[in-house]
Amino acid sequence: MPPPNPDWVQALKPSGPQGSELLQQERAKSSLNVEQLAEFLFTRENLERQSRLLEILQAHPVFDKTQNYFRGRREAMEVALARAKKLQQLSVEHKWSQDEYEAANDLVSEPTPYGLHASMFLKTLQEQGSPEQHKRFLEPAQRYEIIGCYAQTELGHGSNVRGLETTATWNPEDKTFTLHSPHLTASKWWIGSLGLAANHAVVVAQLILNGKSLGPHPFVVQIRDLKTHQALPNIHVGDIGPKFGYNTMDNGFLLFNHVKIPHISLLSRFSGIDPDTGKYIKPASPVLVYGTLTFIRSRIVLQSGSVLARGVTIATRYCAVRRQFRDADGAGEGESQVLDYTMVQYRLLPLLAASYAFHFTGRAMLELYNANQARMAKQDGRPKSNEKDAGSSILADLHAISCALKAFSSTTAAEGLEVCRRACGGHGYSTFSGIGSWYADYLPTVTWEGDNYMLTQQVARYLLKSARAVISGKPSYNDITRVLERFVREKGKGPAVALDNNQTLVDAFAWRVASLTFEALKNRDEDKQPWNSLLVDFWKLSTAFAQYIVVKTFYEALQDQKVISSLDPETMHLLSKLFQLFTLHHWSPDSYGSAAELHQMQAEQRKRTLSLLGDVRPHAVRLVDAWKFPDWQLDSALGRYDGKVYEDLFHRASQTNPLNDVVFDPYPASPVLFRPEGKQGAYRSKL
Amino acid sequence: MPPPNPDWVQALKPSGPQGSELLQQERAKSSLNVEQLAEFLFTRENLERQSRLLEILQAHPVFDKTQNYFRGRREAMEVALARAKKLQQLSVEHKWSQDEYEAANDLVSEPTPYGLHASMFLKTLQEQGSPEQHKRFLEPAQRYEIIGCYAQTELGHGSNVRGLETTATWNPEDKTFTLHSPHLTASKWWIGSLGLAANHAVVVAQLILNGKSLGPHPFVVQIRDLKTHQALPNIHVGDIGPKFGYNTMDNGFLLFNHVKIPHISLLSRFSGIDPDTGKYIKPASPVLVYGTLTFIRSRIVLQSGSVLARGVTIATRYCAVRRQFRDADGAGEGESQVLDYTMVQYRLLPLLAASYAFHFTGRAMLELYNANQARMAKQDGRPKSNEKDAGSSILADLHAISCALKAFSSTTAAEGLEVCRRACGGHGYSTFSGIGSWYADYLPTVTWEGDNYMLTQQVARYLLKSARAVISGKPSYNDITRVLERFVREKGKGPAVALDNNQTLVDAFAWRVASLTFEALKNRDEDKQPWNSLLVDFWKLSTAFAQYIVVKTFYEALQDQKVISSLDPETMHLLSKLFQLFTLHHWSPDSYGSAAELHQMQAEQRKRTLSLLGDVRPHAVRLVDAWKFPDWQLDSALGRYDGKVYEDLFHRASQTNPLNDVVFDPYPASPVLFRPEGKQGAYRSKL
Repeated sequence: MPPPNPDWVQALKPSGPQGSELLQQERAKSSLNVEQLAEFLFTRENLERQSRLLEILQAHPVFDKTQNYFRGRREAMEVALARAKKLQQLSVEHKWSQDEYEAANDLVSEPTPYGLHASMFLKTLQEQGSPEQHKRFLEPAQRYEIIGCYAQTELGHGSNVRGLETTATWNPEDKTFTLHSPHLTASKWWIGSLGLAANHAVVVAQLILNGKSLGPHPFVVQIRDLKTHQALPNIHVGDIGPKFGYNTMDNGFLLFNHVKIPHISLLSRFSGIDPDTGKYIKPASPVLVYGTLTFIRSRIVLQSGSVLARGVTIATRYCAVRRQFRDADGAGEGESQVLDYTMVQYRLLPLLAASYAFHFTGRAMLELYNANQARMAKQDGRPKSNEKDAGSSILADLHAISCALKAFSSTTAAEGLEVCRRACGGHGYSTFSGIGSWYADYLPTVTWEGDNYMLTQQVARYLLKSARAVISGKPSYNDITRVLERFVREKGKGPAVALDNNQTLVDAFAWRVASLTFEALKNRDEDKQPWNSLLVDFWKLSTAFAQYIVVKTFYEALQDQKVISSLDPETMHLLSKLFQLFTLHHWSPDSYGSAAELHQMQAEQRKRTLSLLGDVRPHAVRLVDAWKFPDWQLDSALGRYDGKVYEDLFHRASQTNPLNDVVFDPYPASPVLFRPEGKQGAYRSKL
Repeated sequence: MPPPNPDWVQALKPSGPQGSELLQQERAKSSLNVEQLAEFLFTRENLERQSRLLEILQAHPVFDKTQNYFRGRREAMEVALARAKKLQQLSVEHKWSQDEYEAANDLVSEPTPYGLHASMFLKTLQEQGSPEQHKRFLEPAQRYEIIGCYAQTELGHGSNVRGLETTATWNPEDKTFTLHSPHLTASKWWIGSLGLAANHAVVVAQLILNGKSLGPHPFVVQIRDLKTHQALPNIHVGDIGPKFGYNTMDNGFLLFNHVKIPHISLLSRFSGIDPDTGKYIKPASPVLVYGTLTFIRSRIVLQSGSVLARGVTIATRYCAVRRQFRDADGAGEGESQVLDYTMVQYRLLPLLAASYAFHFTGRAMLELYNANQARMAKQDGRPKSNEKDAGSSILADLHAISCALKAFSSTTAAEGLEVCRRACGGHGYSTFSGIGSWYADYLPTVTWEGDNYMLTQQVARYLLKSARAVISGKPSYNDITRVLERFVREKGKGPAVALDNNQTLVDAFAWRVASLTFEALKNRDEDKQPWNSLLVDFWKLSTAFAQYIVVKTFYEALQDQKVISSLDPETMHLLSKLFQLFTLHHWSPDSYGSAAELHQMQAEQRKRTLSLLGDVRPHAVRLVDAWKFPDWQLDSALGRYDGKVYEDLFHRASQTNPLNDVVFDPYPASPVLFRPEGKQGAYRSKL
C-alpha cells in the first residue's frame, strides 16, 4: 500500500460549497417521503433484511471491497471463489432462504464461480430430473458435494439450439450413451462455472437413436475427478479467457471424445429412452419450458429497473455535487450544479423515469406469471382438454410480452448505464465511478436468454398471428386483440392525443402498435415480402409493443387502489410526472393531418418535456434515495450518499491504489522498469 | 502456460464450410480493386511504410501481443513502459519522422506512458516557449533526458478552464512564482504520463500578480528528482487509479504546497512578466490557440473514420463467417451467413459507410486547415490589419465546423464500435474479439478536447451569429451564410428531395440546418428564452450541422476530378452507394405538405435503404479489406483476414490463457483456493 498522504495534503478540503452541503440542500428542497416510497417498492421486511445481510457480510474480511477495482483476472477469480464459498457457508449457518441468498449476492454485486451451480444446474435437475435422478444428482448438488453447470451453448451455435453439434448416441448393447464432439465448433462455450469450478455438467446434446437425431436433450455428466479436480479421460475442459466484463466468472469450454455415460444420465422427467425396449418416450407439451423462459425474462424486466437505477443514483448524486461554469444568462451564484443544465436533465431524468417504469412493469409481469402458474398447477401442469386453448393462449401471450419487454428493457438499461457514465463527465471514466464495471457486467443480458434482436422476430410472429385472427374474426380475447380490433373498427384513424391526458397517451402507444402490425401484415401477407426483408420493421414493431406495455402497466399502477392507498398524494403526483416524462420521451407523433399540425405537436412535446424535467429536477436526489442502495453495494466514489465525492476519489487514488507504491525509471536507455519503493535494489525486466 | 491440447482435440476442425472458404467466396463475389482503393486512401508510400514498420516491431519480443489481454494493470503498465522505451530507441535508430513514430504507435495500438510527453509536452514547449526556454526545456525533452506531461485539468474542473484553482503567484522580491494548490479540488487530475513517468510538467495555473488573477498560464515545473524519481519536497504526485480503458497510461494527480519556481518557468512566447518591472506582457491574439485546437479536432475527425473502420472490419469478416439459422422462407442451403440478415446489415453497413464518410471529411478538414495555416504563415502568424476580419472569420468558421464534426464523428465512432461488438453476438463479449478494449480505450475521445455536448453550444453560438449577420444583411461570405441566405430567400420552403438525386439530398441537409438555426434564433432573440432552456435544441442543431458538412464533403469528393482519376468507375459507383447509404441513414423527411406525403417519403426511404444494403452487401468484405489493417494490429480472433475465427478463439482460450494452468478446489468447506498444476502441495489463501 502507498504511504499516507503528507499532512499538508490531509489538511486540504474541496473548494466552494461542500458535496455534503449540496446533497443536504437537495434533500431539503423536496418533501418526498423516501421511506414510504422505498417500503412500497421493496416492502419493509426486505429493507430490514438488506440491513441485516449487509451487517453480516461486512463483518467478514473476504467481502472487503477496497481492492476490488485493482485485481487482475486470476486474483479476482480467487477472491470470487472465496466469496462464493463464504456465502454458501453463511447461507447454511443462517439458514438463508433462496431469496436471502440472492439478496446477499446482490449486495456483493459480482458474479461468482458458484453462480450457475446455484441457479441453472440445480434448477434443471429439479425440473427435469426423475425422482431417482434427484436422489443421485440433485441432493449431493444441494449439499455442494458436487458442483455443476449448464452446458448448452457451443462455439458455433448460440441462439440456434437445434443447430447444436454435440451428440449423445444410444448404445442398446450396453444401455449407455456416447457423448461426442464431432467438430471444434461442437465445443461447449461460454458455460458459466465450467471453466474452473464445476465437476459436473448438464450437457445439452443431440440424442441419436438408431442413427436418427431426436433433437437436443439434457444429460448429467461428471467431467472432473472429485478429488484431484483434473478432467476425466477424453474430456477437455477449461476457461475461455477474459471478457469485456463478468471476469469473476469462469465461463468455460468442454469437449468430449467418445465418452460413455450410463442410461441414468439422460434427464428423464419429460422424455427418455426405455432401457429395455430402446424406445423413445416423447416429451410432454413444451408449455412448461415456455413457462420457465417466461419467468426468467420477466425477472430480467424487473431487474432492469434496479440495474438502471444504480447508474441513475450515482449520476444524479454526482451531478448535484459537481459544479461547472456559470449560467450563460448569469442566473444563480457561482458555478451551476451540473444537474441544473437541461442537456444533463434531458439525458438523465428520462432514465430515472424508466427505472421506475420497469419496476412497475416487471412487478405486473411476475404477478401475471404467478397467477397463470397457480392456475396451471391446479390442472397438475397439464391443461385439461377443454381448457387447452385458453391455457396455452395465455402462455403464448405471456411469452410474447416477456420477449418484447426483455429486449426493450435490457437494451434501455444497458445503454442507459452508459448514458449515466457519460453524464458524470471525465470522472465517469474512472473505475471508481462504479458505473463502468457494473455496465460491463450487465452487458451480456442484451444477448443471453434470447438475443434482443432475435427475440423481436418472435414478438412480430405473435402480433401477425393475432392480427390474422382479428381479421378472420376469431381472435382470443385479450388486450392486444382488443387494440387490433379497435384499429380495424376505427379504420386506422389515430386517437386525438392530448399531451396532458394520460389515457390518450396510452391510446396513442396502442394505436402505434396496431398501425405497425397491420403494415407488417400487409407487407408479409399481401405483398409476399421475404421474412428477411422485414426484420428491421419487426424490430421496430416489437419495440413499439414493449413501449406500449410499459406505458400501459405504469398507467394502470397509478390507478391501482392498492398503490394509491400505500402512497401519499405528493408521491403519487410525482410518480405521475415520471410516467409522463417516460411516455413523452418515447412518444413521437404518428397520427396527424398536416405538416403544420405535426410541427405543432412536436413543439408542444418539446415544451412539455422541458416543463416535466423542471418538475422532476427538485426531487431527483430523493427519488434515487428511495432505491435504497447502500454505499457498500454501489462502491462508487461519485455516488456516495453523503456527497463527499472528491475526498473519496482522492483517497482511493492516493491511498488504496497499489500502483502508487512502485517507482518508474523513466529513461529510454534504462532497461530497469520498476523499483518497489523503499527497497534499494532495482529489478530488471525480462522484456 | 497451459499444457498442449490432446491429440484428439488438435485433430478437430470447425464444421460446415470453413471460415477461410467463406471469406474466399466473399472476396470472389466482388471485383472491387482493393489495392487501388487502399492506395487512394493512404498512398502507396504509407502502405509500404506500414509493412516496413510492422516487420521491425514484430522482430522485438517486447511487442509480442499474445499476453496483452491477460495482464493486470501493474503488469500492463510495466510492459507499456518497456514498449514506449523500445519505440523511442527504434525511432532514434531508424531516424523515424514524427509520422513514422506515430504509425508505429498505431500498430502497437495501446497508449503508453510516453504518450503525453511525445505529444502535448513537446508541442506546448515548442509553441509557447521562448528561445531560451527551448534550449533549457525543449531540447533535453526531445532527447528524453527529461520526461514531461501537460497538467491542465483538475479534480474539480475539466471543461471550465477559467475555473482552475491552482495558483502561480508572482513574488517581485526574488523574481519567482509560488505554485500552490489551495484546495483538494485544485489537484491536477487525469494528467496522462504524470502518474508514474514524468519528472516535469507543464502546469496550467492562475497567474496572480499584485493580488489579481490574470487567468490561466502555462508553467514548466520539475516535479520529481531526476535520479531517484521521488517527488520533490512539497509536491504530491501519483497515479489516479484504473479506468474503464486506457489502463496502459498512467493518468496522474499533482498537488503543490507553496512551491517556488524561477521566472523562466512561465512559458513566455505569447505573454509573460517583465522580471525587472514586474509588469504583465499581454498575450497575442488567441487566433493561434484556436488554430491548434482546430487542428487537433480535425485530426479526431479523420481518426474517427479509421477507429470505426477497425470495429467494422472485425464485425464484417466475422458476420461473413458466422452462420446461424436457416432462412425463414427456406432460401439458400444450410444456415445463413449472419451478414445476410437485413437486421445485421442495417446495423453494420451504415457504419461501414460512415467510416468512409469520416475519412473524406477529415481529409477535407485538414486540407482547409493547412491552406489557412499557409496563408497565415505568409502573414507571420499575425493577420495584417486590413485582412484581420477575413483571417479570423475563416478561423472562426473552421473552429465551429471542427467542433461540430468532432462531436458528431467521435460519438458516432464510439457508439458504432459498440454496435459492431454486439453484431458479433455472444463472441463479441470475449476480449479476443478485439473490439471491447479498442472501444474502451477510445471512449475518452467523446469527453476530451471539448466534451461532445459542451462543444455543441459553441457551434450553436456560431450559427446564431451567422444567422443574425444574414438577417442584418452583413454576412461574411462562406458556405453556411449562403445556406442561411437561401433559406431566407426561399421563405423557408423546403427543397424537393428526390432520393436518387444526390444533390437534392445535400440540399435537404442544408435546409435542415437553416431551419433549425432560425428556429433557435426565434426562441433566443424574439422569445428571449433562457440559454439553458435551449441546450437540447443546440445539440440537435449542431448534430444536423455536422451531418450536413459530412454529406457535403463526401458528395464533393465524389465530384472531384482528382478522386475520379484515381479510382476506376466500379469503385466510384460503390463509393456513391456508400454516400447514399450514409445519407439516407441520417436523413429524416422534414419538409412535406401532408401526412400522406410524409408517409410516402418514409416508405420510399425504407425501400431505398433496403436496396442500398443489398447493393453494398456483396462488396462488404472487400470494402473493409481496403482499410488494410494487419491482423497483428487488430489482434482479433473474430476479425482475422483468413477467416479462421473458431480455431483462433479456441487456441487463445486453451493455449494462451494463463488461467488454465491453475486448478480450483471447488468445495465450500475447503479454504484452499488454487493449486498450481503439477505441484503436489496446495497453498492456502490468506482470505
